Amino acid sequence: MSTGHAPDIDRLIQLLGKLPGLGPRSARRAVLHLIKKRDPLLVPLAEALATVRDRVRTCSVCGNADTVDPCSLCADPRRATGTLCVVEDVADLWALDRSDLFTGRYHVLGGTLSALDGIGPDDLSIAPLVDRVRREAIEEVILALNATVDGQTTAHYVTERLASTGVRVTALAHGLPVGGELDYLDDGTLAAALQARKSL
Amino acid sequence: MSTGHAPDIDRLIQLLGKLPGLGPRSARRAVLHLIKKRDPLLVPLAEALATVRDRVRTCSVCGNADTVDPCSLCADPRRATGTLCVVEDVADLWALDRSDLFTGRYHVLGGTLSALDGIGPDDLSIAPLVDRVRREAIEEVILALNATVDGQTTAHYVTERLASTGVRVTALAHGLPVGGELDYLDDGTLAAALQARKSL
Ligand SMILES: [Zn+2]
Ligand SMILES: [Zn+2]
Repeated sequence: MSTGHAPDIDRLIQLLGKLPGLGPRSARRAVLHLIKKRDPLLVPLAEALATVRDRVRTCSVCGNADTVDPCSLCADPRRATGTLCVVEDVADLWALDRSDLFTGRYHVLGGTLSALDGIGPDDLSIAPLVDRVRREAIEEVILALNATVDGQTTAHYVTERLASTGVRVTALAHGLPVGGELDYLDDGTLAAALQARKSL
Repeated sequence: MSTGHAPDIDRLIQLLGKLPGLGPRSARRAVLHLIKKRDPLLVPLAEALATVRDRVRTCSVCGNADTVDPCSLCADPRRATGTLCVVEDVADLWALDRSDLFTGRYHVLGGTLSALDGIGPDDLSIAPLVDRVRREAIEEVILALNATVDGQTTAHYVTERLASTGVRVTALAHGLPVGGELDYLDDGTLAAALQARKSL
């Protein structure tokens, strides 16, 4: 099949089509749009992408993805110390942070325990969490994990691991739809779950 | 509102969100996906985008967008000479070419005549089309313009301008949904319209 263009353009279409939300057809439209809007869109997008490619890293404190380390959140002196919100991944951190409901600090586990996928405690950032709770004199750890079986198993395990520190451990209230992904919730649901959080 | 990340990442989200088919939410998911798939996706995508940014140009022969000039289609010796398919824009060229129904050469007008938008004959690639028909000894010009009022007005105007060359001018058969954009049609509809094309 002919494509009407050289391999360079075809390659861009194929790579864009791998982004979630863009299929092959919309990737083609996106590339046509980029070619049409060369100066206002293609040029700045290429630069922004190269910048993120060159600078993105995992925050050594909390596990967030950012172009600075410590990340913008960890480096922000306006954020409250003393409370850590524990999330499964960076998408959840961004979702919570966008809601502006939580003004403390975060900790990214990097996943959940999963017997099926062979993910054990050492594959997650649990030991660093325990260290952090002691070192930063944390008073409350809020577990904001997905309401999935693996998420809840992980919540219980993390609670046990934190027991020796004496920190107060809370979890987002149920109110999250069971099996629901935190990342997809609206701010209202998130707010309700956060306010009704309970001790574990 | 906090975003959970530095301005570099925010800028990438905002630029990606300007692509057709991607809103702010899906752009954020796309960036998270890119960060997670740094080596297999972010790195090659950044490179592909830079390549297209640096090399994309308008074909001096047909008006196609490509990274080479003449474009891949104009340079392809397997494509039939003698028949030109005239389209409004590059998106239409790619759509037709993907269908593999037409094996001749193309000519991109760059739009349609539009009194409302103040687009006249000199704003379109009409004079170059007439030159091309003479120079390349074209036997048939197929007008593959959208079935819109402006598209059909343009078809009539182009037909008049080509009259002096003696070339046979045909147009895609109606069968295109009225008001429909050629770019959105399935291959079957395109095939029917192409086969039933008629002289103007
Ligand atoms: Zn951080
Ligand atoms: Zn060309």
